[in-house]
Amino acid sequence: MASSRESLASAECPVARTVDLVGDRWSLLIIRDVLDGISRFGALQRSLGLSRNILTERLRTLVAHGILETRPASDGTAYHEYAITEKGGDLFAVLVALRQWGEEHLFAAGERHSRLLGIEDDQPIRKLELRDSDGRTITHRDAYVQKVPPDPRS
Amino acid sequence: MASSRESLASAECPVARTVDLVGDRWSLLIIRDVLDGISRFGALQRSLGLSRNILTERLRTLVAHGILETRPASDGTAYHEYAITEKGGDLFAVLVALRQWGEEHLFAAGERHSRLLGIEDDQPIRKLELRDSDGRTITHRDAYVQKVPPDPRS
Repeated sequence: MASSRESLASAECPVARTVDLVGDRWSLLIIRDVLDGISRFGALQRSLGLSRNILTERLRTLVAHGILETRPASDGTAYHEYAITEKGGDLFAVLVALRQWGEEHLFAAGERHSRLLGIEDDQPIRKLELRDSDGRTITHRDAYVQKVPPDPRS
Repeated sequence: MASSRESLASAECPVARTVDLVGDRWSLLIIRDVLDGISRFGALQRSLGLSRNILTERLRTLVAHGILETRPASDGTAYHEYAITEKGGDLFAVLVALRQWGEEHLFAAGERHSRLLGIEDDQPIRKLELRDSDGRTITHRDAYVQKVPPDPRS
């Protein structure tokens, strides 16, 4: 029997597959930092205060799954840099959702925090809205998960 | 010096505070299951294939931080159930973002997966859209993080 950990990667639930890959604090914060323009191993290590071993292992996994890619250093030295891929960039919505929940629930009134601004107007980006197929704004109470029915051929 | 792990809970970055609290696969999958209507300890354990100890610890943390709450069992027995709070329900956007990324990037064409449908029309809910303050659709390339400047009084 596969362990619960092993079964997540092949789960029929897309949430399970995604958290199996990026559902740990360090992977999410590495992706945050690379999206934020931090590209060198040393700079990531300083930003996250992470051991060399753990950072190396997480970066390897993120590159292996096409979320990050390596490229030669932009300054022409022999180092390489980490960059976000298209696939990795699509995780931006996950990071925005995490950010907006934290802003709303984990800071005291008036407590200062970093902000995500649009480059066009330097204003905070809008709160994510969940909408059904007709465009109605919804919450978790207005949606349900349809499981995959058993395959009749198997 | 605080460890990197300890410093996340008081970070000025809302992403860091949120992942410190819910940024692990089991917490995210527990929240998924409770949102999905699974409310008993035994049912959560069967759904996740998780050890009693780990599940107990994660549930305790989620209750302590007001993401889940306990209530008497709806069938009148002496058991109790776990329910999502308002604060926890706001994490729905995080789960939808994780789901939509997985649907797009972690399934082969035609591979079956569970779907999130609106209760009004039984149709898939819309893809999350990121918009700046003017309503323009944006990607990670169109936004930047404004750090908190050092406090001049300190």
